[in-house]
Amino acid sequence: NAMPQGNSEAGKVKSFTCQFCHGQQGLTKKDGYPHINNQSALYLYKSMKSYQNGERGGAYGEMMKQQLSVLNEQDLADIAVYYAEQP
Amino acid sequence: NAMPQGNSEAGKVKSFTCQFCHGQQGLTKKDGYPHINNQSALYLYKSMKSYQNGERGGAYGEMMKQQLSVLNEQDLADIAVYYAEQP
Repeated sequence: NAMPQGNSEAGKVKSFTCQFCHGQQGLTKKDGYPHINNQSALYLYKSMKSYQNGERGGAYGEMMKQQLSVLNEQDLADIAVYYAEQP
Repeated sequence: NAMPQGNSEAGKVKSFTCQFCHGQQGLTKKDGYPHINNQSALYLYKSMKSYQNGERGGAYGEMMKQQLSVLNEQDLADIAVYYAEQP
């Protein structure tokens, strides 16, 4: 279950759908939503895996599971590294 | 399910056990753990409620549920406001 090596440039492209809620650089404008810039890449990766696995439930958990359903582990690592690098 | 009005001073005191992992000002030193400073208070509150409700599973979810089990909604709101205010 180790996190693959992520590529930030690839992550920027793959994060397209994330941006509607979390912002291009990870700063959300929505109250009740998390900023995801400047977190550890490992935390972001593990959180996304938890949503995929259905470990995070509730309405937002279902929504995130849906959002992340088309992404594989390499995609998640790329996105995690991209947002982790945003100031 | 509205969030109670939180009190930051009270939250600082009540966040004592949070600080071991998330830091006194919300900046964690642990890789794979989230920084919780400067998020929206509503997001922090809802996340803690999700842990309490068992909506966030997995090993960390269980641990957080345990950690938060003694806190009521006022406590959670106080803690949420405290960490939201940290720069």
